[in-house]
Amino acid sequence: MARKIVKSRFFLGGDFIETLAEVPTEEHEKWPANENLKIVGKEVPRIDGYDKVSGSAVFTSDVILPNMVFAKTLRSPLPHAKIKGIDTSNAEELPGVLKIITYQNTSDIPWYYGTTRLFDSTLRYQGDEVACVAATSLKTAEQALKLIEVEYEEMPHVVNAAEAMKTDAPKLHGNNNLVRGEPSIYERGDINKGFAEADAVVEDTYTTQIAVHNPTEVHCSVVNWKGDKLTVWDSTQAVFRVRDQVANSLKIPASNVRIIKKYMGGGFGSKLEAGKYTVMAALLAKELGRPVKILLDRKEMNLAVGNRPDSVQTLKVGAKNDGTLIAMSHYSYGAVGAYPSGAGCSWPLRTIYKCPNVKTEDNSVYINAGRARPMRAPGHVQGTFALDSILDDLAEKLNIDPLEFRLKNYAEIDQVSNEPYTSKLLKEAYQKGAEIIGWNTKRKPAGSDSGIIKRGIGMATQIWWGGGGPPAHATIKLNRDGSLHVASGTQDLGTGTYTIMAQVASEVLGIPIDKISVIIGDTDACPYAGSSGGSTTAASVTPAVRDAAEQMKDKLITGAAAILEVPQPQLIYSAGKVSHKQDSSKQISISDIVQKINENVLITTGARGANPENKAVNSFGAYFAEVEVDTETGKIKVLKVVAAQDVGRVLNRQTLDNQIHGGIIQGIGFALMEERIIDEFTGKILTTSIHNYKLPTIMDAPEIKVIVVSEGDHLINNTGVKGIGEPPIIPTPAAIANAVYNAIGVRVKSLPMTPDKVLEALEKNV
Amino acid sequence: MARKIVKSRFFLGGDFIETLAEVPTEEHEKWPANENLKIVGKEVPRIDGYDKVSGSAVFTSDVILPNMVFAKTLRSPLPHAKIKGIDTSNAEELPGVLKIITYQNTSDIPWYYGTTRLFDSTLRYQGDEVACVAATSLKTAEQALKLIEVEYEEMPHVVNAAEAMKTDAPKLHGNNNLVRGEPSIYERGDINKGFAEADAVVEDTYTTQIAVHNPTEVHCSVVNWKGDKLTVWDSTQAVFRVRDQVANSLKIPASNVRIIKKYMGGGFGSKLEAGKYTVMAALLAKELGRPVKILLDRKEMNLAVGNRPDSVQTLKVGAKNDGTLIAMSHYSYGAVGAYPSGAGCSWPLRTIYKCPNVKTEDNSVYINAGRARPMRAPGHVQGTFALDSILDDLAEKLNIDPLEFRLKNYAEIDQVSNEPYTSKLLKEAYQKGAEIIGWNTKRKPAGSDSGIIKRGIGMATQIWWGGGGPPAHATIKLNRDGSLHVASGTQDLGTGTYTIMAQVASEVLGIPIDKISVIIGDTDACPYAGSSGGSTTAASVTPAVRDAAEQMKDKLITGAAAILEVPQPQLIYSAGKVSHKQDSSKQISISDIVQKINENVLITTGARGANPENKAVNSFGAYFAEVEVDTETGKIKVLKVVAAQDVGRVLNRQTLDNQIHGGIIQGIGFALMEERIIDEFTGKILTTSIHNYKLPTIMDAPEIKVIVVSEGDHLINNTGVKGIGEPPIIPTPAAIANAVYNAIGVRVKSLPMTPDKVLEALEKNV
Repeated sequence: MARKIVKSRFFLGGDFIETLAEVPTEEHEKWPANENLKIVGKEVPRIDGYDKVSGSAVFTSDVILPNMVFAKTLRSPLPHAKIKGIDTSNAEELPGVLKIITYQNTSDIPWYYGTTRLFDSTLRYQGDEVACVAATSLKTAEQALKLIEVEYEEMPHVVNAAEAMKTDAPKLHGNNNLVRGEPSIYERGDINKGFAEADAVVEDTYTTQIAVHNPTEVHCSVVNWKGDKLTVWDSTQAVFRVRDQVANSLKIPASNVRIIKKYMGGGFGSKLEAGKYTVMAALLAKELGRPVKILLDRKEMNLAVGNRPDSVQTLKVGAKNDGTLIAMSHYSYGAVGAYPSGAGCSWPLRTIYKCPNVKTEDNSVYINAGRARPMRAPGHVQGTFALDSILDDLAEKLNIDPLEFRLKNYAEIDQVSNEPYTSKLLKEAYQKGAEIIGWNTKRKPAGSDSGIIKRGIGMATQIWWGGGGPPAHATIKLNRDGSLHVASGTQDLGTGTYTIMAQVASEVLGIPIDKISVIIGDTDACPYAGSSGGSTTAASVTPAVRDAAEQMKDKLITGAAAILEVPQPQLIYSAGKVSHKQDSSKQISISDIVQKINENVLITTGARGANPENKAVNSFGAYFAEVEVDTETGKIKVLKVVAAQDVGRVLNRQTLDNQIHGGIIQGIGFALMEERIIDEFTGKILTTSIHNYKLPTIMDAPEIKVIVVSEGDHLINNTGVKGIGEPPIIPTPAAIANAVYNAIGVRVKSLPMTPDKVLEALEKNV
Repeated sequence: MARKIVKSRFFLGGDFIETLAEVPTEEHEKWPANENLKIVGKEVPRIDGYDKVSGSAVFTSDVILPNMVFAKTLRSPLPHAKIKGIDTSNAEELPGVLKIITYQNTSDIPWYYGTTRLFDSTLRYQGDEVACVAATSLKTAEQALKLIEVEYEEMPHVVNAAEAMKTDAPKLHGNNNLVRGEPSIYERGDINKGFAEADAVVEDTYTTQIAVHNPTEVHCSVVNWKGDKLTVWDSTQAVFRVRDQVANSLKIPASNVRIIKKYMGGGFGSKLEAGKYTVMAALLAKELGRPVKILLDRKEMNLAVGNRPDSVQTLKVGAKNDGTLIAMSHYSYGAVGAYPSGAGCSWPLRTIYKCPNVKTEDNSVYINAGRARPMRAPGHVQGTFALDSILDDLAEKLNIDPLEFRLKNYAEIDQVSNEPYTSKLLKEAYQKGAEIIGWNTKRKPAGSDSGIIKRGIGMATQIWWGGGGPPAHATIKLNRDGSLHVASGTQDLGTGTYTIMAQVASEVLGIPIDKISVIIGDTDACPYAGSSGGSTTAASVTPAVRDAAEQMKDKLITGAAAILEVPQPQLIYSAGKVSHKQDSSKQISISDIVQKINENVLITTGARGANPENKAVNSFGAYFAEVEVDTETGKIKVLKVVAAQDVGRVLNRQTLDNQIHGGIIQGIGFALMEERIIDEFTGKILTTSIHNYKLPTIMDAPEIKVIVVSEGDHLINNTGVKGIGEPPIIPTPAAIANAVYNAIGVRVKSLPMTPDKVLEALEKNV
């Protein structure tokens, strides 16, 4: 099966990355619709389900090594301070304390693009690392932290983006507190001309809060040296990236570092890079010659491992009388914390709807708080909330139904690149979703519901990049007994990667799932795959698995041809054997092929292939929410969400539904209750546990109906998959906000829509 | 780099195996002599040396898992018995005993080709497994063994091959106590005619003893289930074979079993298959839901994990007056213990010397003792001892110098297949070795040395199969920082596999050794390679490594061509970069290629390629020993051994010397002191520890001079390697025996040549 190298590109982290891809010279046969496939698309139970339910799954914190010690981190109690001195002597005398590292005895390791170091003598947020202690027990390590004496010189702090942008605000990195010193600007057409030509214009400001990832599984590492080789069990979405960062920080070859992550309890983007705690643990372990385990507690999870930036978004939108959008502008600023990150949230406005004149300005602002990190659909959740809220207002001003307004402004091509989409079934999603929620039958005019408890229905549109990220590889090993290994250096956050990999291999080779073993999350044992973020995993890894499986099929036919002495074109593969197309008595089982070759195990490695040239690849969704608002208490209850998705092929209906349910529930959290609260005066976080950082529970889950309007999109990759991880959270808060407006006739323009804000809006309206 | 499938074969375990091999359509460039290579052939220190010396290397018995329990095996104290009943109740009551398995509560798992089972109610040797106990400590498990009550019905036993061949001997498997029921016979030409034409004939009988492998590292396993997946840390030379045998015994897919073996303290052939102890531990672990560690003690090592069969060899050799061999016959029998194995030792006679008329008959005989297993150069050590001893006698009868006699009967082509050799530098080895030992200058007529302590010089010839065994694969992963992983599912018994793999990759890609990490011995993480036995590892695995590295070089050039937009034939690779052949300013580093491709890690998998068609591949050696015999005490001291070898290319001069030194010392052990002794009356082994089974120590090591007369043999594989593991032991006892004859003028025809035998021979000669 000949291969060639072609140019490719993929979208990640806000940019297109140019790359090369290795592809077969002949494309693999297009898969038909799922109903004609054997196992792909079906509801296959997770193959790692038993491990998790039985407790036999080894999560990072379950790893126990002989002679292992425990590490804890001392963090700054102040939002902005210099360290004048550290005295660790009392802590060192505590029995069981083995070693303490600080900036005084640790080499200078740059961090966050050189804006700080592993241990910095300047601390820029409550939570910034001061010291790390290794002790024979966790309790001893925790006690030791209290005995470390630090002399701080407090400095003025700023914990509010608006304040931080003022000229007299305390400066974190010596400039104007803007990341890169200036905003990000995007323009097309001429918005002044556009607004001049508009028949109706609406301008308004929306705000969203800082949200914190709070995955179930905390950040943690277990590190173990053997000579100059380091093994790290880490809770990460990015085994290869962590490997490179750790190797680079410790100045050792990447081949000396092994990262292992088999099971994960969520990440949501907070685990896409190496943590300082991992490198600290590695330094301690090297010094002590013992393995080190370091776990973050829930307070550290709320202080120091990332968050979604907040946003203040001022939008101005204008349309013609018939509803055609003519101009849109978007100005925003958001707090990214003390170190470089991005708060941009203007992509939905740039990309969802057809509009010739657009200008956006995103400001990412430093404040003395924990650094932001990508959180499930960065920017898009905030941006879609503001955009779809204000467009509902504009539609109402023009007396046009909101759904009709979306259809009126349907973008047939990518609005930024002007490239055609590989596929776009958003229209079908609108139609199906509207039908199921009862858009035309159940929805009443805004605020017209009688009684104290009012119901409403609202909608929003979702767009996200699809089709996969960085190059990915998968290795398949076929054993003599017909069982299979599938390996790829990817991750399973709880999303179901293990299972879809097995399904794809099973589909191609006809080997039953219970004879397939999947190996992921091990930089030694697996070929490279990218980080699991950006909804890229299924769309990157499954095509690589299919490619490896097709190569294996090819290898079996080639082997059978040599053994049976029949030309290859006369042979056909079907589950478990290769036979002569005309004379089925001439056949050989795959077990026999492997045995006769006396290769105990056949091996192939596949790659994910190239992204299509000059085409935009996106997933789309139309979400409809039905809510109930108690106008006396201000409480919002989400009754139902209908999620209509264009995501290319469904690989596993069960895990896809799980993803959508999870994203919707997380969207409800963002819409109604989650918020990181900082006290302005002290600069300290008030929400440091999940008692006061309010996460949604099963009690908050609505009825959810999922419709997938798409089938495989064969233009994007050989499994036809777009990706599903982030789409479900994106339109959920916006759909809820529009439903609330439809229920009570007043708009809440600030997330989370807590009862006080609802009541305030109602009051203003009286 | 296009690939194709071709037919191939390799020699293993006494047979040629037909196979297929995947090869590049264009052969890799022939490597020049070592002096023109950068790192292959040099004395590179073992890359795993630090791990071993520092104690950080994890051997199987070092593995500790949380909640782990310990298992010990109860073994038959009798050589031949039936179990009438087993009562484990007292043992079960011992606190800490968790589970006991016997034939009564264990499913029937066939073993040794179905001649027995995991637990058989018929026991056929002292050491045969009766029960296995799992307990919370090793001591408790050992105590529990003593509390298991077994009622045995003793049966007549036979522990001597000659006795076992008699018609009235106790029968082990219901026939004539011959494995397969009949001898193995080989013939060519007509020996009757040949002997009739001979001018001189010598007939004599030689005997050799049972020897036991006794590697430093005992047999042991640690087994751990996770759900229905099993991980086994095992001390094995054959990770993939053990995986298949364990999976098959437990009736689970091979993809559910993972075997890991990173460091080994020797095997010598005793670790080429799964041990019953591994499957017993797996059954206990499954039942208990806890990891199980099982270690054999030194007594079990001497009873139950294999041995070299003994031999009684009657040879008859005839030659013309000018020394040309005209006929040779060989009749032998040897004890293989209680289960099927092979005692044949006639290959040296069939293959070393040119002779048109040959007949051999090998009998493998069952006795009530531990089953034989391949032990470093099975058959060849015993066979060469007898053959080279009797040929010295025949040469003396014809008044021809022994060395001249060998040269006279030099085989230019393979004597069995009539195929030409790919290379044969035995003549050069004879000449060089003779020169260094002082064959013509120091050697005196037999027995002519004066004094009580007499010196003598003797020689012998070595032949063994070379060029590699089953197909092998290697995977190479190139990281962005220019560091490398090399992985292959092979083993390092202490031979240096880790290091030569790194050297070969380094040679091709110019990456320094300290940036190369080698991964072996893990059936999940590595592509398939065969078992490490038969001197096949270096010759199988290094060509696969080279192939993977050449493919990587090719991939880098292809990538560079796409990036620089230069046609591939104009590009050249040199350490660390790809440049334009004419314009060196057009270049790109491999780090940049990997980065620009945005493949974080490039991956290739190589295969070892095909063995040459219609050619014999063998290693050859000429060994010369100088000994001192104390004619009063009978003690033999080996002063010096000169080892001249034709082994194709030397990959690492240091590890090659280590192999030769080790093989020679082991050969001295076999020649002078090692012997398993069974008491005929009780049928019990008397040598159950290394106090009474005499292994050579450093005090027995002679001066050793190693000369390698060969360079790379490019006809056999792309690294030109033949293999070196077994050759050094093969001719050593024979050379010593011939040196003893030269010293004292009488022949000792029985190994080991203990002082009593020397004195007896001297006495007979008076």
